[in-house]
Amino acid sequence: MENAYGKVWLIGAGPGDLELLTLKAVRVLASADVLIVDALVDPEIASFAPRARVVTTGKRAGCRSAPQDFIQRLMRRYARQGKTVARVKGGDPLMFGRAGEEIAYLFDNGIEVEVVNGVTSALAAAASLTVSLTHRDFGASGVTFVTAHRQDHSAPDWATLAAAGTTLAIYMGLGRACEVADGLLAALPASTPAAVVACASTRAERRLVTTLGQLADDCRAAKMPAPALILVGAALESAVGDSLPAARAVA
Amino acid sequence: MENAYGKVWLIGAGPGDLELLTLKAVRVLASADVLIVDALVDPEIASFAPRARVVTTGKRAGCRSAPQDFIQRLMRRYARQGKTVARVKGGDPLMFGRAGEEIAYLFDNGIEVEVVNGVTSALAAAASLTVSLTHRDFGASGVTFVTAHRQDHSAPDWATLAAAGTTLAIYMGLGRACEVADGLLAALPASTPAAVVACASTRAERRLVTTLGQLADDCRAAKMPAPALILVGAALESAVGDSLPAARAVA
Repeated sequence: MENAYGKVWLIGAGPGDLELLTLKAVRVLASADVLIVDALVDPEIASFAPRARVVTTGKRAGCRSAPQDFIQRLMRRYARQGKTVARVKGGDPLMFGRAGEEIAYLFDNGIEVEVVNGVTSALAAAASLTVSLTHRDFGASGVTFVTAHRQDHSAPDWATLAAAGTTLAIYMGLGRACEVADGLLAALPASTPAAVVACASTRAERRLVTTLGQLADDCRAAKMPAPALILVGAALESAVGDSLPAARAVA
Repeated sequence: MENAYGKVWLIGAGPGDLELLTLKAVRVLASADVLIVDALVDPEIASFAPRARVVTTGKRAGCRSAPQDFIQRLMRRYARQGKTVARVKGGDPLMFGRAGEEIAYLFDNGIEVEVVNGVTSALAAAASLTVSLTHRDFGASGVTFVTAHRQDHSAPDWATLAAAGTTLAIYMGLGRACEVADGLLAALPASTPAAVVACASTRAERRLVTTLGQLADDCRAAKMPAPALILVGAALESAVGDSLPAARAVA
């Protein structure tokens, strides 16, 4: 006999534009009894889950985020009531989404979990720049997705990451653009192509195309808003950015 | 005045299951006059493009793939006729999809290109294993996506990639599992968790959970079919695989 517990779906909402939801996400959302939404996800997503009680969580400016263990207990409570729980995260849940902790917790509590993938934000940033993250001609045979923000506040080993020769897609790096650039400049030339995309795929999207050497200054000058992706590598050579202010436009 | 050229959409079909198409992909496919589909994509995708003339391309067993320049000229021809061209690739077009070459060619020919992202196959493989590719507790603060198959037939520098400390997601590596494992074993212990997912997200999906030291032998013994993703790293520790044959099952 199956247990009478409900199921938790970990759903990727994609990078911002709700038109990047998958058909599967839409189907599951329509059946959800409870919708638990991270604050970075467009609240309009609730319109896809008309039956659901909506709980919003995660970080917003000026508010403390709901503690992770509170969210986990919330999922457990509703699942134990037999509810279908849709836990929605920005991008894909399996990249920088703390899904590992949530999956372990739910498994330990005998609750079924299934993942519905989403478009991860770095790919939306690349789409916005109309640039491939891999390119045979540029020797970019891979991509490294990394977060600049680590739990223990240590910095990634930028020089070792740069040495791998892959295109770098850096999440949550805007506030540390200076530190990120300094770290990478230990291993890469200042002329290495770089780009920053804020709010990829949304109407607030902004695109800055620059070089590693100019990255920090240009982010500051352009007042790029978060959340933003930093992309670094030869594959960015042909990236298409927004129009530059006249002072920096190249004739 | 706008030119009378049509537009080319580079669309990610996702990892296999057509339910992982995005709403945006579905909208664009419905408007397509011409559908150019890679052979790894489920041919049922044509049902989303009822108005379109369908051209299938890419590699199939026993057939030569259509040369890249033929595909590019085909896109140009239809776009110059004012058609809406949907070029569909497996996964996301901006990862290992040769989109960079196609974008450059179309831009050079004055043809507008827009990208519609898809779910990249490594994320579907992780979803199938119910495992996050990043995990704070395992020090996996990033993921490197890399292809084992390079244009010049050289091998990636596996030891340098392993040194970055990220989870590794290796595309097109099944036929070289031995070489991949040997390369990584120069920098990682044989006990490092590893997994292989074939045909992720489809009914033919198969999942093998193993260690780096056993990877090549286990792939051979399990006769894993292509296409497959190889995932390596501590974050795979809790991966959920298919039931093992009795001989290898752990009590």
